[in-house]
Amino acid sequence: MNYIKDPWEIEKKSFEIIGKNIDESKFDKKELLIVKRVIHATADFEFANILKISKGAIEDGLKVLKEGFNIVSDTKMAEAGINKKVLEKIGSKVKSYINLPEAKEISKKCGITRSMAAMEIAAKDESNKIFAIGNAPTALFRLIELVREGKAKPSLIIGVPVGFVGAEEAKEEVKKLDIPYIITEGKKGGSTVAAAIVNALLYMIER
Amino acid sequence: MNYIKDPWEIEKKSFEIIGKNIDESKFDKKELLIVKRVIHATADFEFANILKISKGAIEDGLKVLKEGFNIVSDTKMAEAGINKKVLEKIGSKVKSYINLPEAKEISKKCGITRSMAAMEIAAKDESNKIFAIGNAPTALFRLIELVREGKAKPSLIIGVPVGFVGAEEAKEEVKKLDIPYIITEGKKGGSTVAAAIVNALLYMIER
Repeated sequence: MNYIKDPWEIEKKSFEIIGKNIDESKFDKKELLIVKRVIHATADFEFANILKISKGAIEDGLKVLKEGFNIVSDTKMAEAGINKKVLEKIGSKVKSYINLPEAKEISKKCGITRSMAAMEIAAKDESNKIFAIGNAPTALFRLIELVREGKAKPSLIIGVPVGFVGAEEAKEEVKKLDIPYIITEGKKGGSTVAAAIVNALLYMIER
Repeated sequence: MNYIKDPWEIEKKSFEIIGKNIDESKFDKKELLIVKRVIHATADFEFANILKISKGAIEDGLKVLKEGFNIVSDTKMAEAGINKKVLEKIGSKVKSYINLPEAKEISKKCGITRSMAAMEIAAKDESNKIFAIGNAPTALFRLIELVREGKAKPSLIIGVPVGFVGAEEAKEEVKKLDIPYIITEGKKGGSTVAAAIVNALLYMIER
């Protein structure tokens, strides 16, 4: 069997193919890097239509990353997908709180999901400036509530939960906040998409 | 904001919605559990058309899982997405070799990708019976070669790498082997899909 073995060559070829299959003129240079990386991670061109990036959101995200602020993810899976080498280089971290005993405790005591409890804990740490939600709509809903209650002040919300119950609605709510966002309209999204968006930002800084 | 907070209720509702939107008669009961869980994880109904399960593959997978054999994943991301609680209950493990120093070493020495080196190491451990590849086509290509060389004897290949370069071709090659498989035809797939398929199998045994 003959196959390309160089991961860089694979990525380069892949990005070329993606570029030829979307209307690149719809995006600016940085937006395009995000859109292409998400399609690279999903092989799903629909993301070119449903990815919505609020004005200035990429710059806001890059700014806090360059300052070494941290990223919160709602799942261990998104956390695992984010490039640790680059994170380390720029002095930032990705943190998920879902498996903390404290999250379990709050979840039980307050009758909320662990995903929601994890957002409450994460919001208390002011070094957390980017919130990337790829899985649980409840996490995103709780984050939105925390923002409205003045208990969370993210510099960027990456809101891409996936699913048929609540995901679409949660993402529409994000738009109503006065917080920079990168979302996927509708039902699609996922931990892979969240990680791809974060990695696209990281690679704009260092690679 | 009013939203459903019970994860079980969300999952139940989601599966109901999925059931109404696919032709359930095309699948048997167990196949349907896999198809629905993949669509649940991606919100992408195309998977109902591209998921291909070889005859008896689910039973073969369940058999080795019940016997406590292990699962190999090509990425930390798929590993993170697989339900550890259920794995522990049935006495199985999920292992990825991609970050091992040994994988790096082989990769450098032999001029192959770390994903390929990881497959070579994984194949040597006879407790590894299910290989779940969600990301790297090169990992799947190398696994296929190892099978042909008689160096790997998986009981089930979950072959769902995603992408525009090699993914489709690698999955077509899997079909030619005499090994039970669950694959996604075409370019779509991913770590999320690999984890969803493994979890669907695990939940058939225990939950």
